Amino acid sequence: MARTVDFNCDLGESFGVYTIGEDAEMMPVVTSANIACGVHAGDPLVMERTVRLALAHGVGIGAHPGFPDLAGFGRREMRLSADELRTSLIYQIGALWAFARAQGAALQHVKGHGALYNMAANDETQSCAIVDAVASVDPSLILVALCGSVMERVGRERGLRVAGEAFGDRGYQRNGALVSRSHPQALITDPAAVARRVLRMAAEGTIEAADGGEVRLRPDTVCFHGDTPGAPRLVRAAREALTRAGIEIAPLGRWLS
Amino acid sequence: MARTVDFNCDLGESFGVYTIGEDAEMMPVVTSANIACGVHAGDPLVMERTVRLALAHGVGIGAHPGFPDLAGFGRREMRLSADELRTSLIYQIGALWAFARAQGAALQHVKGHGALYNMAANDETQSCAIVDAVASVDPSLILVALCGSVMERVGRERGLRVAGEAFGDRGYQRNGALVSRSHPQALITDPAAVARRVLRMAAEGTIEAADGGEVRLRPDTVCFHGDTPGAPRLVRAAREALTRAGIEIAPLGRWLS
Amino acid sequence: MARTVDFNCDLGESFGVYTIGEDAEMMPVVTSANIACGVHAGDPLVMERTVRLALAHGVGIGAHPGFPDLAGFGRREMRLSADELRTSLIYQIGALWAFARAQGAALQHVKGHGALYNMAANDETQSCAIVDAVASVDPSLILVALCGSVMERVGRERGLRVAGEAFGDRGYQRNGALVSRSHPQALITDPAAVARRVLRMAAEGTIEAADGGEVRLRPDTVCFHGDTPGAPRLVRAAREALTRAGIEIAPLGRWLS
Amino acid sequence: MARTVDFNCDLGESFGVYTIGEDAEMMPVVTSANIACGVHAGDPLVMERTVRLALAHGVGIGAHPGFPDLAGFGRREMRLSADELRTSLIYQIGALWAFARAQGAALQHVKGHGALYNMAANDETQSCAIVDAVASVDPSLILVALCGSVMERVGRERGLRVAGEAFGDRGYQRNGALVSRSHPQALITDPAAVARRVLRMAAEGTIEAADGGEVRLRPDTVCFHGDTPGAPRLVRAAREALTRAGIEIAPLGRWLS
Repeated sequence: MARTVDFNCDLGESFGVYTIGEDAEMMPVVTSANIACGVHAGDPLVMERTVRLALAHGVGIGAHPGFPDLAGFGRREMRLSADELRTSLIYQIGALWAFARAQGAALQHVKGHGALYNMAANDETQSCAIVDAVASVDPSLILVALCGSVMERVGRERGLRVAGEAFGDRGYQRNGALVSRSHPQALITDPAAVARRVLRMAAEGTIEAADGGEVRLRPDTVCFHGDTPGAPRLVRAAREALTRAGIEIAPLGRWLS
Repeated sequence: MARTVDFNCDLGESFGVYTIGEDAEMMPVVTSANIACGVHAGDPLVMERTVRLALAHGVGIGAHPGFPDLAGFGRREMRLSADELRTSLIYQIGALWAFARAQGAALQHVKGHGALYNMAANDETQSCAIVDAVASVDPSLILVALCGSVMERVGRERGLRVAGEAFGDRGYQRNGALVSRSHPQALITDPAAVARRVLRMAAEGTIEAADGGEVRLRPDTVCFHGDTPGAPRLVRAAREALTRAGIEIAPLGRWLS
Repeated sequence: MARTVDFNCDLGESFGVYTIGEDAEMMPVVTSANIACGVHAGDPLVMERTVRLALAHGVGIGAHPGFPDLAGFGRREMRLSADELRTSLIYQIGALWAFARAQGAALQHVKGHGALYNMAANDETQSCAIVDAVASVDPSLILVALCGSVMERVGRERGLRVAGEAFGDRGYQRNGALVSRSHPQALITDPAAVARRVLRMAAEGTIEAADGGEVRLRPDTVCFHGDTPGAPRLVRAAREALTRAGIEIAPLGRWLS
Repeated sequence: MARTVDFNCDLGESFGVYTIGEDAEMMPVVTSANIACGVHAGDPLVMERTVRLALAHGVGIGAHPGFPDLAGFGRREMRLSADELRTSLIYQIGALWAFARAQGAALQHVKGHGALYNMAANDETQSCAIVDAVASVDPSLILVALCGSVMERVGRERGLRVAGEAFGDRGYQRNGALVSRSHPQALITDPAAVARRVLRMAAEGTIEAADGGEVRLRPDTVCFHGDTPGAPRLVRAAREALTRAGIEIAPLGRWLS
């Protein structure tokens, strides 16, 4: 049974006059923030403000690099070469690093965003590009990778600290894949159900599948989406369930080995 | 009389399939490189390659942040707020820092590009924004600022190491301003003339003005434009003249106090 | 006394996942829509949808070109050359034209956005660039220009149909300039006050100044900002007041000579 | 045997200070220009200038829309939805249309660029999106599509005029696909060989395959790449061979039914 788990959320995704996300509500209830790096979302003012907010709440600061596609919010597949991908990540991690450093803080982790995260989960070349980027900037950074993904394996093989990730508000299929967004069980918005599921992940390393049976899944960090309706309530319900069960919720950097 | 002076050039300004600049020819003859940070020019692949080239030639690595205006190459005036400007610089410096760090190197300096450099030279608010950005990322970074500018003064007042800059291939007016680009004496392309002028700057702290008389000017670093016709020859002529006079040409980071 | 006046609003300013503006609420109450052209705001999907919404409400379709500065929403001053400005407008007008044409409609007008509108209001060169762009794409397009501005005069001199514009929810100074946004009387949010002011503009050609006295102002089109609190109510109040006074509110293209 | 064929080239791909392509050399030797629309390449100034150059040489003006990926020059695969793709094309076609119209000219054709062209060649959904875009802006526009592609078929089914395209300077495989760029026979740079091949295409409707045998191929338009070494000489050699054989080379719009 896990003694400690991390809760993460994608934050800092506003851009210029365009505001999205529930940053002020989510920051107090998670322990790690995946902060957009000004390429698929975010801008320098937003990055500074989001780092400040994370520090004020003792939340671990993570770079959340994505594809160079603001119009598509980094959710559209793009075929970058390994070198294009690797250098784009170095760029984005460095940009966020500077905002952390300017506030006397350090980066804790890196997590790919959107289509980049999904494509790399199943792709050795892209996973290597991402891992190389992280290792070259700072090999002490934690890589957040989908539990059971190619990226998780590649990260560990290259000697990075890797945090396996699961989703607290998403349905899973028996084969371990997420239920498609178009399916009625894709999103779980009942706080009690979310709490029960996250507790089972953390305590037993399993989760009930939407198509019956169980999936084995032992995440170090559980992702919550700020745009899921009632997201802050979901996270609080999960926090209470875990805390009651004696499982601590804390930023990855404090405990992940 | 100066014992040592730095020669700098703007490099790494290519973007995607678009190649500009004489990086391969200029890098061997200068001692500091101002590397575009992917905002007004440059991209992650170009940044990595340019840092590598600088390291191979023992050239000091500098961030060359500019306005967010690729279409205008950072040469068009833009009215950013002080916070927009400051955070844009933190962003750009951080991005380049990561490429230096990934190759085991450190940043030496920061120099504003184009319209940003020109506007800040006469503007207290913008100079403060730039100085704050540099100081917050790394107070040991050298700020390159036009000799006699507001930015030079603000940088020194805030305790940064500041390198005063002059232009080796540009004509000056008696009042210390550059001759307008439309004027016949704007650009000096005769190697002997460039060598003589740069030597006088370094040895005597003066330069002949296009409209008669002399300008007092004692630069720590002399800028050469890679797109001036015959630029590498101009730089080599200046190098020989200074070397013969016993003046060393070396990266700022090795000697500027 | 005016028999007819137009009400306009900036619409279609969302971008990708980023939604702003009260398009669904404002479209039914105005008669002309200034639609962002994908450069300072808007994207192709948003442009198509906004044109469709305008057609559904019988609202005149206008191109709302702005500076190439999505991060600054076209509100930051940029120094484009006359040719850069002119060709950027041709580009933006053409892009919106295609969405109108694809839905069997025609463009009614062009109105500059943000900093472009403000800079050109006082600048002969920029006004000429804008007027040249409009005339070269389609000389039957109506140019919307600030009442009393250089752009209004230049547009008329070049033979364009020009609609003079005033602001229904903004305070004016005695000299005809808008009250600065930082001033308490900058924004008028009381529906009765807005209705009274717009009625006086339309019926008498005057408006009460924030610093006493009156301003002469006889707009063909009155602009309402969708982001003013309670904007749809303000517009409805103004509509009722004018209708009661026998003044028709109709798209410029139907009546402006 | 063909009586008439068109020669096309991608032109107007410069951007801001970045100049590429041999526009001045290629424009006089081709009969149709595919002009970048400011999204994957090109900018408003370049678009205006390229339209002017085409008109000066009696060259047919075509829109050359591409993916929104300037950094990748539209050569990287992107997964846009059908609506995103369709509206992006409407946007780009409209933008170029305005430059043609401002110079008193009309658009002749539309040809997809780079990865968009390649992806759509084999994809029904994307082909439909492109065809819908073209038809909605102007159903009299000619669609240029790879000979034998899905896009060619879809275009004809929807009632567009479609020009089948082949490549004059690229090797073909027996199955009709282009030889991969990494293969020694990918690019044909001998003028006599190019002339012979283009003549066979036009006169006999066949081309010799790199892996033996022949490919049936009867193009309406033959594409030449401006960046192939010695491109203008290749085109001139092909022109002479065809002219000698009594085959006319003329813009699609003059003869394609």
